Amino acid sequence: MSKSAKLVVNAIGRAVPTEVNGKPAIPYKGVGKHKPDGRKLGPRIASCVDFPEDGNKLVSSLREALIKSGLKDGMTISTHHHFRNGDLIAVQIFDIAKELGLKNLVWFPSASFECHAPLTKYLEDGTIHHIEGSMNGQLGRFTSEGKMKGVGVLRSHGGRYQAVQDGEVEIDIAVIAAPTADFFGNANGVDGPAACGLLGFALADSQYADKVIVVTDNLVTFPCVPWQIQGNYVDYVVKVEQVGIPSKIVSGTTEITKSPDRLLLAEMTARFCEHAGIIRDGFSFQAGAGGTALSIGIYFAEMLRAKGMKARFARGGSNKYLVNMLEEGLVDYILDGQTFDLEGVKSMRENPNHVNTSPFTSYNYHGKGNFASMLDVVILGATEVDVNFNANVVTHSDGLLLHGIGGWQNCLFAKCTILPVPLFRDRIPVIRDEVTTLCGPGELIDVIVTERGIAINPLRTDLIDRVKDSGLPVKTIRQLKAEAEKICGVPAKQKFEKEIVAVVKWVDGTVLDTVYKVSS
Amino acid sequence: MSKSAKLVVNAIGRAVPTEVNGKPAIPYKGVGKHKPDGRKLGPRIASCVDFPEDGNKLVSSLREALIKSGLKDGMTISTHHHFRNGDLIAVQIFDIAKELGLKNLVWFPSASFECHAPLTKYLEDGTIHHIEGSMNGQLGRFTSEGKMKGVGVLRSHGGRYQAVQDGEVEIDIAVIAAPTADFFGNANGVDGPAACGLLGFALADSQYADKVIVVTDNLVTFPCVPWQIQGNYVDYVVKVEQVGIPSKIVSGTTEITKSPDRLLLAEMTARFCEHAGIIRDGFSFQAGAGGTALSIGIYFAEMLRAKGMKARFARGGSNKYLVNMLEEGLVDYILDGQTFDLEGVKSMRENPNHVNTSPFTSYNYHGKGNFASMLDVVILGATEVDVNFNANVVTHSDGLLLHGIGGWQNCLFAKCTILPVPLFRDRIPVIRDEVTTLCGPGELIDVIVTERGIAINPLRTDLIDRVKDSGLPVKTIRQLKAEAEKICGVPAKQKFEKEIVAVVKWVDGTVLDTVYKVSS
Repeated sequence: MSKSAKLVVNAIGRAVPTEVNGKPAIPYKGVGKHKPDGRKLGPRIASCVDFPEDGNKLVSSLREALIKSGLKDGMTISTHHHFRNGDLIAVQIFDIAKELGLKNLVWFPSASFECHAPLTKYLEDGTIHHIEGSMNGQLGRFTSEGKMKGVGVLRSHGGRYQAVQDGEVEIDIAVIAAPTADFFGNANGVDGPAACGLLGFALADSQYADKVIVVTDNLVTFPCVPWQIQGNYVDYVVKVEQVGIPSKIVSGTTEITKSPDRLLLAEMTARFCEHAGIIRDGFSFQAGAGGTALSIGIYFAEMLRAKGMKARFARGGSNKYLVNMLEEGLVDYILDGQTFDLEGVKSMRENPNHVNTSPFTSYNYHGKGNFASMLDVVILGATEVDVNFNANVVTHSDGLLLHGIGGWQNCLFAKCTILPVPLFRDRIPVIRDEVTTLCGPGELIDVIVTERGIAINPLRTDLIDRVKDSGLPVKTIRQLKAEAEKICGVPAKQKFEKEIVAVVKWVDGTVLDTVYKVSS
Repeated sequence: MSKSAKLVVNAIGRAVPTEVNGKPAIPYKGVGKHKPDGRKLGPRIASCVDFPEDGNKLVSSLREALIKSGLKDGMTISTHHHFRNGDLIAVQIFDIAKELGLKNLVWFPSASFECHAPLTKYLEDGTIHHIEGSMNGQLGRFTSEGKMKGVGVLRSHGGRYQAVQDGEVEIDIAVIAAPTADFFGNANGVDGPAACGLLGFALADSQYADKVIVVTDNLVTFPCVPWQIQGNYVDYVVKVEQVGIPSKIVSGTTEITKSPDRLLLAEMTARFCEHAGIIRDGFSFQAGAGGTALSIGIYFAEMLRAKGMKARFARGGSNKYLVNMLEEGLVDYILDGQTFDLEGVKSMRENPNHVNTSPFTSYNYHGKGNFASMLDVVILGATEVDVNFNANVVTHSDGLLLHGIGGWQNCLFAKCTILPVPLFRDRIPVIRDEVTTLCGPGELIDVIVTERGIAINPLRTDLIDRVKDSGLPVKTIRQLKAEAEKICGVPAKQKFEKEIVAVVKWVDGTVLDTVYKVSS
């Protein structure tokens, strides 16, 4: 395939290829404008004849399971990221593939972490052709430098489910690392030494992959209860010494921020929500990970306590702060997509009101609705925002691809989307004329909170009205941009090569933007 | 279509049609001999664009929901039977269809009960063309008399899931009556005034139907937790006064038998299991409903208590006896497909070791294994057994179709299948040269327990060996047949018309046998 395919300008003004890795791609048409007319992928029909009557699907090693699954050149292999930076399985898969002399595999993780950096050598030697998923850190840099054979495809968590469900990505072999499993393949994330909470990111993989391998270090007698992954989808089960490093499963920020700047952002965001009438009895919120977001949760908790109100539900990523709110009765339910700390894992194991969810329930845009759009407010991060409220979450202003999309795009459908961002980072303004990479259409982004003022999307006249007498420092986004540029200067436009290194998919499978090779 | 289609003799010697209701049908090829090579049905891809962003899918009435779902002539409408004889919704659907002047609908219930007898008028007037599901009681008699326009199709619970998954039956509109639901369509069976335990029989319907309507009398604020049916599959939600009559949800036999004959059968069955080495620490069993089966559970409990052992899991239909075993610690888990009494419902609601299952997990033969084949022993009923151990569970010896298959066929895959049956009923011998309708191939039926002796399938030399010194009255099946005939005489062969009124599908979708119109 060609990495400099034909480009067309899509509905939001970005030049995107009409072919990605040799497959046709549909340019983004606008929010809600692309309506699918096909049918979901029908996985191959299995038969009990081909499976052991006693339910025992154990094979001796991951290598054996991969060989029995028919691993061969060009196949798409999927993994999930619930072990976060403590994952021990993904690299092993490709070590085996390399030993077997395989080429041109596609890695389809639900996200990648620094622990996956060793895969760069397999991207270099052709074992892996390209990654569809997030390319974080070293893998992102490798991609940005144009070293990956194929084009990276970035999808949101919901977009990943959509792509699998709709047959855009056909997974040949899914490898599901599980903290606990039985020999039939029933598996969960709440029990065992490497407990990571849940396995929702592997749901699509289990349902749609041609072959499914469950790998566990905690094999229990059938039945493994609860079964978050159903053994009826599983072909082989492998027992290994260790599937994940518990101390690294909990990674990223898990403490509230102590930075005065971030605390200010958190406080202003919470105050905005209060004045906008969002904090009310029975409301719902999602605040994500990161120190600022965690701090906003603390402010919400204080407000609810003071008002004698409670939230109906909060969406996780869960952490000890959210669990405390659940236990204190400040929120009825946590609907959780991933646990960010061990308090989250414990709560999910023990508290029936701490419910595990999946990208299907929460984010899939090609479902009959999803949870994300029901949220009263969602608070998200961004690397850049432009004057039309379009935002970037995958590249930095230097053009390097360093982050995945996660659930970010999916969350934009909440009733109110707020991005608390600093006005500048390392003297580089965050608000720009144009974002380096467009990940979220501005029409879905309602409020930008910075330390020097709050910009409300002009489309949201309701919000503008509600906070007009609040005393909050409401400004236009252009005012905020000007303030930043007064301090930091107007940023130079980043230069790129013409070579496409990745594309950003929208939640409906269309191509929203293109990521180019950085100039060296 | 013709009701006297071309017949061929299938692998077990029964004449079956190669076309049923105008669609081609595959004759039974033998246990494990039909291997599917296709793909599962891919349901139409939906889009969140077409669903309310706030998650509220409520419409004002079932009638409105059916109209919005596009109800029209010839459509297939599905319902589930968790309300058993207390279902209030299925008949309403066809009352509405009649009002709308619709014709030739197909009713695809997971089972029917006496409460569905009013549907005979819609079978008579052409509103309903035929039933695919069980035709019990009056509906069975109506079918047997050749009055149904189309041919009835009898499937096991697992066969129903298989047929839907494989696209043999495409459900146009699924109506899922739910004891509790939220406006998004998340629903469960454990809460609410009409709590029926679970909704597993509606799982396939939710996943594969084109349109899905949830009807509830207990609408709760989102989220309805637990969600046994996922709102992401649901199109419309309807609030009604009452979905089910609680006192009739619990129906059928829920007390242990007091009949000395049946108690004897139960005791002999339990003793057989003990001598055959089936009752051991960590074993598993399924005993179904009915007085004899319940009594066998009591014997199992006594044996386990005496030996200081426990079962790893029991499969429900659950009832108070099984719940007692769970609570006493005589069984680790109940893996439950339907609750037969309110103690079962309560236990499923409150005890995390009382797990709801579905025909997908437990019975689907076109999955990657299922739970049924893992069971150490299953105890089932039968209306007739022949000298080759083939058994009948749907018709009586007078030819009348009076029962559905339920999970019976699926359960035959257990490691040991035992049928405790009386030697005769109303002076009609149960063991015969040939069964009226063949529902289960003899090669899967291991033991027939009667009050006058136990016949072990000659294929099971292992079982014969294990009980040979037990003192149990082991006889050949022909000996048992002769004993019955000595008392009752040789039964006359039932005469039938040539007209086909129903077919019995095997677990893999092939046609196992044919049900003919009874001679009047």
